[in-house]
Amino acid sequence: MALEDRVRELAGEVQPPDRDAAAKARERQLVLTKPPGSLGLLEELGMQLAGMAGEAPPPVPVNPAVVICAGDHGVLARGVSPWPQEVTAIMVRNFCAGGAAANVLAGTVGARVSVLDVGVAVDLEQRPLLRTAKKRYGTEDLSRRPAMSREDAAGAVISGAGVAEELIESGVDLLVTGDMGIGNTTPAAALISAFTGRPPKETTGRGTGIDDETFKLKVRVVEEALQLHEPDPADPLGVLAALGGLEHAAIVGLVLMGAVYGVPVVLDGVVSNSAALVAHTLASDCMGYLIAGHLSTEPGAAEALRYLGLEPVMNLSMRLGEGTGGLLAVPVVQAAASVLKEMATMEEAGIG
Amino acid sequence: MALEDRVRELAGEVQPPDRDAAAKARERQLVLTKPPGSLGLLEELGMQLAGMAGEAPPPVPVNPAVVICAGDHGVLARGVSPWPQEVTAIMVRNFCAGGAAANVLAGTVGARVSVLDVGVAVDLEQRPLLRTAKKRYGTEDLSRRPAMSREDAAGAVISGAGVAEELIESGVDLLVTGDMGIGNTTPAAALISAFTGRPPKETTGRGTGIDDETFKLKVRVVEEALQLHEPDPADPLGVLAALGGLEHAAIVGLVLMGAVYGVPVVLDGVVSNSAALVAHTLASDCMGYLIAGHLSTEPGAAEALRYLGLEPVMNLSMRLGEGTGGLLAVPVVQAAASVLKEMATMEEAGIG
Repeated sequence: MALEDRVRELAGEVQPPDRDAAAKARERQLVLTKPPGSLGLLEELGMQLAGMAGEAPPPVPVNPAVVICAGDHGVLARGVSPWPQEVTAIMVRNFCAGGAAANVLAGTVGARVSVLDVGVAVDLEQRPLLRTAKKRYGTEDLSRRPAMSREDAAGAVISGAGVAEELIESGVDLLVTGDMGIGNTTPAAALISAFTGRPPKETTGRGTGIDDETFKLKVRVVEEALQLHEPDPADPLGVLAALGGLEHAAIVGLVLMGAVYGVPVVLDGVVSNSAALVAHTLASDCMGYLIAGHLSTEPGAAEALRYLGLEPVMNLSMRLGEGTGGLLAVPVVQAAASVLKEMATMEEAGIG
Repeated sequence: MALEDRVRELAGEVQPPDRDAAAKARERQLVLTKPPGSLGLLEELGMQLAGMAGEAPPPVPVNPAVVICAGDHGVLARGVSPWPQEVTAIMVRNFCAGGAAANVLAGTVGARVSVLDVGVAVDLEQRPLLRTAKKRYGTEDLSRRPAMSREDAAGAVISGAGVAEELIESGVDLLVTGDMGIGNTTPAAALISAFTGRPPKETTGRGTGIDDETFKLKVRVVEEALQLHEPDPADPLGVLAALGGLEHAAIVGLVLMGAVYGVPVVLDGVVSNSAALVAHTLASDCMGYLIAGHLSTEPGAAEALRYLGLEPVMNLSMRLGEGTGGLLAVPVVQAAASVLKEMATMEEAGIG
């Protein structure tokens, strides 16, 4: 089957969450030993988790994993980032050696780390944590031509989905999306503008940290890309191929496969948020399985989450990527499920 | 020594955090494998933890504990809460049996639970998690007379401090403040108005959930209390005795003793925030050891944190108390320390 058809098939397998289980969880929230609603977003998350799992109380996720999808970006040639392309590969090695922020935060929350090379510009030596499914050595400059072919975009989606499936089959019960790719906030901004309709000056941010002049250039680059490709939101794979990155595509696959399995998918920041827009357009039912781990300081993140109707769990003014913001939300998700499973009811405690 | 003098002595023992260690941590943030500042509040927390510990990188807190301070409130007679006083004792039993939200969230983040009865209106049977240091069977109605004597307020501070010291001596390296007391958001609002100068209508909230009429009454009760006592912020123990609760006083003691030992104290919501105002006035250096675990939906919480200059870690629209919001921040604090301790530097990774 052609890769595009496989993506469509995967999207078609996503089922809406179980409303009855969510409703049952809602009722249970009302009889636990707390004023109704007093746990705020934690109560909402608990009901959402019940819907995903199809049971109330939902199981507590105990085997989280972050998948850091990595790729390079032809648009870097336009000067949109102060960091050289080599840093993508260096950081992949850093993940494999356990020295990056994502490794540290994964350790804090007990998550395993996988790295998926779908498009790093150089060949990387094999490492235990690294999976290689390289489609190309980085994308093309999206401001001049399509970032990649539809086939490559679809292939990266399928690779991301494959890693998710393998992890879930091996016992992972919560996925955190992560990204690494110098220059990848530029395609993220372009995707967010394409799907939300917000102008590039509102979706583009300073990424790893750029000066005013570079920021203006970056906005212009995104504007040029949108003018060149005239993206059609009704063709999500076409938009992804024209404007996206290979790691963005792989994250679309993580989201779709997580949703197919009914496993919660915790989104990291702006790159994951932009990928979620693609996934949402491919299969709107996947929304029920998505949790916005945090609100990145990149302005496109807020635009994407608003469009998707997702409330972020964390808001720590972070903008690192790698899955770091998503990882910090993991204990909150676990707590939300545990509340439903373990708290005493009013009746049990002798209230009322 | 009189109890008041013991409080003053304790406050006098608080030393400012170590600026050199904080500065050293700040330098280290700049050379780790991430764009400077990209971990946002996590980087700030890391520097603060270094200052508390007097070393950079700071130790990672691995033995957190929540102390749930419990007391009853004479002001309940004014009808400020829909819940009967008996629920305080029922919830203390629920904590001891492990069935409350605080127990569940403590389990999620690996914290031990202690309950301190400084003023529950009934005698409670002994339980392994319960410490009894009851000063009175609840407070007086603060809208009609002082809530308690200065001696009782000071005694509850010393009891809270004693529990903190005992826990720290037994290996606890992070304290989360918790509270239980039906009616205790009314004294919290009164304390916050007294110290910040904000009017009661801006510091009073709906607590466990009250209707418009009860809310108006609650604001009026706080206004009456302030008019009656004319609290002088320069006399923090006097303000605490006139307007506070015994659990608020015990939390003041937790804060002060945590600061004396250089142990991070993670504040829960509005009751803890109001106690922090008292502690801050007694010993402004204790601020360096305080972390605002979350922003409660109670409006007084935002006023108190703004006054104290504290940025909340979590914001999940929670308003339960018990330490629940503080507990959810524990992994973030641990992550902040771990980043400094475990991340590779740019040089180690071969960048630059």
